[in-house]
Amino acid sequence: MNDSVLKPFGLHIKQLRKDTALSQEELAARCGLDRTYISGIERGLRNVSLINLFKLAKALDVAPEKLLAFEVDND
Amino acid sequence: MNDSVLKPFGLHIKQLRKDTALSQEELAARCGLDRTYISGIERGLRNVSLINLFKLAKALDVAPEKLLAFEVDND
Repeated sequence: MNDSVLKPFGLHIKQLRKDTALSQEELAARCGLDRTYISGIERGLRNVSLINLFKLAKALDVAPEKLLAFEVDND
Repeated sequence: MNDSVLKPFGLHIKQLRKDTALSQEELAARCGLDRTYISGIERGLRNVSLINLFKLAKALDVAPEKLLAFEVDND
């Protein structure tokens, strides 16, 4: 299940970040996370925790549930 | 932010589990997780990862975004 969730999640976060015209650095600063961590999320390498999902949602100014509104890859 | 997210999340998961008339043991078995882990989630002690959120959603037969549709405590 890992790649089928983490990869599309990463692309979804990247799109939401671009929608708000934030750089990875800016998003990282807003979340209090490292830029390399944001980069890892967007590449599908990070299994983000609930707390960090809420930090991302706040930083992206979207409802938390919107972060999970993406299509999982079929595998 | 931790308790203000994890505690209401735990209560939300507990309610969703009860809505489907599953015991903690049954939910754990469906997720491939331990019953003590489910118990920890419901008591707000676990910072659940994205992968486990998707396992929980599948086991509870709800859309993943529904798991994040709860009110964070103000603190």
